[in-house]
Order: sequence, then structure tokens, then C-alpha cells
Amino acid sequence: MKETARQIFLAAVRAVEPSVAVRRSVRREGGLLAVAGRTYDLARYRGVTVVGAGKAGAPMAAALEEILGDRLLGGLVTVKYEHTQPLRTVRLQEAGHPLPDENGLRGAAAVRDAVRSLGESDLVFAVLSGGGSALLPLPADGLALADKQETTRLLLACGADIHEINTVRKHLSAIKGGLLARLAAPATLITLALSDVVGDRLDAIASGPTVPDETTFAEAGGILSKYELTPRLPAAVVRRILDGLAGRCPETPKPGDPAFEKTQNVVVGSNRLAIQAAAREAERLGYRPLILSSSIEGESREIARAHAAMAREIRESGHPIPPPACLLSGGETTVTLSGPGRGGRNQEFALAAAIDLAGLPQTLMLSGGTDGTDGPTDAAGAFADGSTVERAAAQGLDARAFLRRNDSYSFFASLGDLLLTGPTRTNVMDVRLVLVGRP
Amino acid sequence: MKETARQIFLAAVRAVEPSVAVRRSVRREGGLLAVAGRTYDLARYRGVTVVGAGKAGAPMAAALEEILGDRLLGGLVTVKYEHTQPLRTVRLQEAGHPLPDENGLRGAAAVRDAVRSLGESDLVFAVLSGGGSALLPLPADGLALADKQETTRLLLACGADIHEINTVRKHLSAIKGGLLARLAAPATLITLALSDVVGDRLDAIASGPTVPDETTFAEAGGILSKYELTPRLPAAVVRRILDGLAGRCPETPKPGDPAFEKTQNVVVGSNRLAIQAAAREAERLGYRPLILSSSIEGESREIARAHAAMAREIRESGHPIPPPACLLSGGETTVTLSGPGRGGRNQEFALAAAIDLAGLPQTLMLSGGTDGTDGPTDAAGAFADGSTVERAAAQGLDARAFLRRNDSYSFFASLGDLLLTGPTRTNVMDVRLVLVGRP
Repeated sequence: MKETARQIFLAAVRAVEPSVAVRRSVRREGGLLAVAGRTYDLARYRGVTVVGAGKAGAPMAAALEEILGDRLLGGLVTVKYEHTQPLRTVRLQEAGHPLPDENGLRGAAAVRDAVRSLGESDLVFAVLSGGGSALLPLPADGLALADKQETTRLLLACGADIHEINTVRKHLSAIKGGLLARLAAPATLITLALSDVVGDRLDAIASGPTVPDETTFAEAGGILSKYELTPRLPAAVVRRILDGLAGRCPETPKPGDPAFEKTQNVVVGSNRLAIQAAAREAERLGYRPLILSSSIEGESREIARAHAAMAREIRESGHPIPPPACLLSGGETTVTLSGPGRGGRNQEFALAAAIDLAGLPQTLMLSGGTDGTDGPTDAAGAFADGSTVERAAAQGLDARAFLRRNDSYSFFASLGDLLLTGPTRTNVMDVRLVLVGRP
Repeated sequence: MKETARQIFLAAVRAVEPSVAVRRSVRREGGLLAVAGRTYDLARYRGVTVVGAGKAGAPMAAALEEILGDRLLGGLVTVKYEHTQPLRTVRLQEAGHPLPDENGLRGAAAVRDAVRSLGESDLVFAVLSGGGSALLPLPADGLALADKQETTRLLLACGADIHEINTVRKHLSAIKGGLLARLAAPATLITLALSDVVGDRLDAIASGPTVPDETTFAEAGGILSKYELTPRLPAAVVRRILDGLAGRCPETPKPGDPAFEKTQNVVVGSNRLAIQAAAREAERLGYRPLILSSSIEGESREIARAHAAMAREIRESGHPIPPPACLLSGGETTVTLSGPGRGGRNQEFALAAAIDLAGLPQTLMLSGGTDGTDGPTDAAGAFADGSTVERAAAQGLDARAFLRRNDSYSFFASLGDLLLTGPTRTNVMDVRLVLVGRP
């Protein structure tokens, strides 16, 4: 059953492998390029340029190189250090992640220069994936990278939510919040996004450089005042927001802006696509699949309990589906740390699930990060079944005590129940599955 | 949609109304009594006695009076104050709940005396429901009620879990942990239980007076020593446990004990039955029902997020079922209090759900306690939909701030979105439903 679960998980990851994802959405038939329902006549364009940023940038660019062949003029994609691979035409810029660095600045400036030199007869792809925001830092005129970083730090410290932080940041950038699209106009711009965010909102992936920005300088100003940040922020940041409020620097482009006249946005890979692939694999392996949701957030150990309760119900009453059943869910949970242990959200999920599954026959859960890394560990996640707690007890390990210490990695390492995949070079958050076999 | 949700919820409650529940499981055809698959020839018995305890005791006894007519000899059921109703043959003893009192002691002693006077030719029903444990207090010889209460208080204070607390308590009782069955033998004993516990474990309902007890004096002693309680416990309690360990007082009856030779246990009402009835009502009203689980526990606001994520998924991808859909779940969540507000687990569930549902069209959630009371409020629960947060904001109410203060009652009272049913006189924990209409 463990092997079955692993196979289903790996099918999910394979479906969102960056080059597989790009190839699913972009197909070439002779001189025509079919992209998610739209067709582009390549003969109409001088050529194609590829820009972008994100950890999956290299394989995404490689797939486009292969598809476009000699129609590809060149381009530049910023990727995380050690996330490169040999390419023929597109240049890769390695840069810092999660903390942006000088190389990131250099890459972002080069991306800006590349797209603003394009004209009406150019076609440009922007390939965006997880990490794209940090990898594509381009402060607005008059701001330094350090100013933006200090602003983020202060916003986090005062408890601003992610939407508030992004509202401010987009108004300090020269490339995010739709500005890359404005730079690229009048070229035709196709964005291919590999989504690592819940809900697949394009304005959240890499801070939405190619989509309309619904937030305003007025809102950004309101956030600074709400948290009384103006006395503590770098002077240049306050000046920038005040200039924006006074209309002295342009707003980010809004829906309907001419910047978006010739744009198409495609989510080529997402948690939902991964889970749908997992469902097909589960079915192939003889399990009835049921997709619960691709966007489950919340505290890991509590969400795990809800999954365990469904596993019990399948066993006891055949709801929501009778065994052999495979429940699937995705999204990204969080862990509120209270102990000094090692682990990650997926391993903690499995540990909490194990406690509630104790004694249940023919029932197994797996939770794993599709990027192959769960928290600061070398595991992607872990397996839990009805025997986990008992097998641990036989080794003198108390599951509840390990959960209290947030020490899920040590727990599953001792049991040999870690999910180890190595880095997968993609990321669409987490995939969890509950297998319930025939009694 | 709100009215539809209310109807589905009320259908769930109706299905576990105590007299409905008893009548579903106990049918009389002339001289034969059919009880959940077994048949009893009433002619073989001198007559029938009814004993029991629990908040639903009165209507359960009333249903048996009606079914058994003049074959009923009498009996005694302990109920909470103000939970009586006129009966013909069975006597009701009102008593304290959740804190046991002298009336409870009196009732429990009378129940003991009633059953131990019975013989081979007697048939006795034990009707058990929520609150039964507190309402049927009978300390073992040499112990006072205050000794048991002090023991419970100390166990709670040191962080013992409910299983540990019950293990100790069953070994301080003269009637729990299967001892009522031992007292009733050689009479034939049928237990009808209305379950208010997750998993419907009969040893947990009213502390299992009529079912085998798997716990031992040795375990009870281990728990006292684990928490180093012996120096602080009443001397009589320590003596009782030591006597038990030394074999000087009998163990509670274990599986296979002769006490259970002529017993039948039937869960006549449960969360699962309520939810199944809700599913039928949802279907009648044009929604595709899907039962997730009848045993979901965990932190209310986190479990709510998982439900909201499923609502979103239905809307966006038609999983786990396409709209019009009705997801159903049951169990009992908990709230970790961090603020001074008023509310209950169901209202807090609805408030957290509302935040995640914001903006979603044609989507409504309802969470309610089947007993009609949620926390220390006069509401059973609350409704949340995609407009809740916005309607609140229009009144100057910030949903997140109310959630932080655990002030869900005030929030929903202002919106007119409380679920108000009044006391329902039954309790099978909570019922939650997610309605997603056609787009």
C-alpha cells in the first residue's frame, strides 16, 4: 500500500514537471502555435523571446526552445542558484532565493531591457514559477533593493497579511504588478505560469508582473498608516508612496489597461492538475479516487484530523466513497511551532494523522511537498497508517510527545516511513492522499 | 438557500429525536419484540423494567412505555433538571448536570436496587444518552461523591486525557464500567443508547454501565503514578485503587464476563444517523449530498477552513461533487479560547468559514449543535456565506477581529445569521453542511 501511495504521489509530481506542463499547454503544428485554446501564426512575428523568473525557469525555457526551434530569438530567465541546465538560445541568470541579491537585480534589469526593446511584431513568453518574486527584484526609480527588503521586514513584523505586504511591494517595484506587461507592449505577451499559490491567482504568482493589479497607491498608503510604519520606513519608500498618492508616478496597470490588449495568461501547472493526475493513477491502480480540494490551508495537525476522520468513515460506513478508496487533497498547510524538533508541514500532517488512524486496518495516508522538500529536512513528507503509533511504541517512541515537540522528521526517520524523493524541480504545493483498502 | 440549509439541519435533528430513535430500533408485533435484528418473546418474561440516565431519558422512556404498554412493570430513569415529561409507569428522577448532586446519587442507588432485584424472567431496558455519566453517580463502597469529583478535578488539572480520566473513574464507581450489567444479571438486558460521542463507543456513553470495560485497576494505578497524584488524592480513592490492585475488590467485568451473557446493545441514535437523514433531505431538496465524515474533531476554525476549501473546489472544478452539492459532516470540534468574546464551536466554525468563503457566489455553510445549544449561548450555530464578511463590513464589523476575540455570537447576532432552534432535547453532537448551488 505504501508503494501504491508513492506511485500515486509521483504521478502527481510528473504531471506538473515544468517541461511536461509547458508542452501540455503549448503545441506547435507547422507554422501555428496553439496555446490553451488560442492560435498564433508564427509567420506574423519577427520571432519569439522568452523571459521570466522562478525556480522552474530552466526546464520551462528548455521546453519552449524545443517547441520553437529557430523561431526563438533569445531571452533571459532568472533562476535560483543551482537550478540551471544547458540551454541553446535562452540565457539563464542565477540569483538569490528566498533573499533577493545583486544577481537578481542584474537579471531583472536585463529582462526589463529585453522586453522594452520589443515591437509590434514580437511574440514574448514570460515563464513564471515559484520563487519568481524574489528572483525578479527591480525596485522603482529612486529605491534600492535594501529599501524594499526593510519594508517587507517591517510589514511582516507588524503582522500585516500577505495581501497587504504585496500591495505595498507592488507599488515599490518597476516590474511587478503588471508593469512587465506594460514594458512589453506593443509586443504580444503569453504568460505561462506554474502555480505554487493556493487558488492559482496570477496576481500572486511572482507578484503578477504580467497581469492587472487591483491594488492602488491609496491602499498601500492606507496600510502604512494602519500599522504606523511611516516613521520607521526608509525615507525613499515613504517618498515613493507619497509621490504615487500625489499622482507624480504612474499607477500599476489596472484591468482594461492597454498594456493587456495583447496578452494571454495560462496556468500550465497547478496543484489541481497534479491532483487530477493522481486521481487517474489511483484509478489505474484499482482505487476509487475522490478529489476533496486543491486548496486546503490551515494548521497541519488539525487538517490531518479531518482527513483521518474521513478515513474512519470510509471504513465504517462507506462514505464519502466505499473502499477501495483514495481521497486526494492539495494546498499548503502551516505549522505553528511550539517545540524544538525537526519536521515540516507534511511530516507533521502524517504524524497527527497517525495518532487518529491508530488501529485502523488497511488504511494509509501520505502527505508530501511536490517540490520534494518539506520544511528544513531532506524528506518530501511521510507515510502514516494504522500501525504507525504501535510500531513507534515498540521502539519506545511516543507519537504524541513527538507531535508536541514538532519532531515529525525524527519520528518517521526512526520508523523508515519518510517519503524521500530528492528535489523534483517543480512546485505546486502539497499533495495528500488517503488510501483505504477493502476490509 | 438559508431556509434550505435550516430544513436539512432540522431533518438531521428530527431523525435522532429520542422517541423517534427508540421507535426505529424497537418494534412490537403482538407478543414479539423486535430490537435491531433480535426478537424477544414477551411471553417468556414476567415483565419489562426500564432504567437509565441521560438528558434524553424522558422521551426515550416514553417511547418504551408506548411500545410495551401493560408489559411494562416500572423502572427509574435519571434526567437533568427540567428535562422531565409526564410518564405513566416509569419514574423520573431529576438530578444535577454537569455536576452530579445528591439527587443523582439517590437516583443511581434506586437504579441499582431496581436491577439487582430482577431475576431470570425479567427483561430490562437501559436507556442511556448524553449526560448519563454525571446523572448516574454511584461511588464504590467507602467513597463519597466528593472524593470522585476531587479526583476528576485533579486529573483534568494535570492534563490527563479523557481515556485516562474514565479509566480511573470507572474503577471508583459501583455502577459504571459494566457493573450495571453485572447487577442486572441474570435478567435479560437491552441497552438503547443515543450516542453523543465521536465513534459511538458504548463504553464512552454514560461511562459504559452495561458494556465490558477494557480498562483495569492496574492501568488506573499507573495513571495515578504517572501524574504523581497519590499524595494529593483523597485517601479513600488511593485506598480503593490499592485494594483493587491487591485483588481485594473485584475488577469491572471484562469481555466474555458472564454479566454480558444476556445483553444486547443498540445505538438507536447517532451523528451518523442524523447526517444520513440530512443527506436524504438534501437530495429531496435538489442537492447532491456527500457525507464526508460523522466524526470530525479538531480546532473549529481550522476544520472550517478545510470545509471552505472544499466549497471553493466544488465551485471551481466540480470536485468532490458537482453543484448543486451538499457536503455533510458531523462530530464535535473544539475551540481554544484566546479572547473574551461569546460564542460556541459551531458559531466559530461559521465565522472562520465566512472569511474563507468571502465573495463566493451561491455558497452557504451552516454549523449547528444538534442539542440546539452552542457554547454558553442561546444559539445552536450560525450561517455563513460568500456575502457574510462584506455585510459585516458594511456594519463596521471586522470578521477577523471577531474571530480573534472568539466573539462569533456577537458577530452573527448583528447579521441576523444565528441558527436559533431552542433546546431540541436530543444530542448527537454537531451537524455541518456546505451548500453550493448552480453558478
